[in-house]
Amino acid sequence: MRRDYDQIRKQLAYNIRVLRGQKGLSQEALAFGAELDRTYISQVERCVGNPSLLVLCKIAAVLNVDINELFVEATLDARQ
Amino acid sequence: MRRDYDQIRKQLAYNIRVLRGQKGLSQEALAFGAELDRTYISQVERCVGNPSLLVLCKIAAVLNVDINELFVEATLDARQ
Repeated sequence: MRRDYDQIRKQLAYNIRVLRGQKGLSQEALAFGAELDRTYISQVERCVGNPSLLVLCKIAAVLNVDINELFVEATLDARQ
Repeated sequence: MRRDYDQIRKQLAYNIRVLRGQKGLSQEALAFGAELDRTYISQVERCVGNPSLLVLCKIAAVLNVDINELFVEATLDARQ
């Protein structure tokens, strides 16, 4: 399994949206927990911007998942 | 499995070093392939700096692994 930047960015956007929904968090709540601006979360979820590792770690922490779960394919549906 | 930023950064640094060694690539060769400066690769391998998602994708592409393999624990030794 090898994916390019666009594929990974799309999966990241999708996974954050799904995980955030599973936790019942708004973009504002995720942003607040991760000490980021709400528009930044919105950008990541729309595949805009290029988040840093630190930002990804902060988002993963609020969503209570390991960083790899932000990129993983296919397992998200099974968990819903 | 949940890890914080420092743990993830350390694992990333270790994994890039190991994967690069497995491919027989110098830091210069990895940097050239990923269109990055050699000092930047050196920084990431020393847990300095905060690489962006695009940089991580470029490094993974040159190492011919999926992005998740840059963060994964424990499987690297088995592959050597």
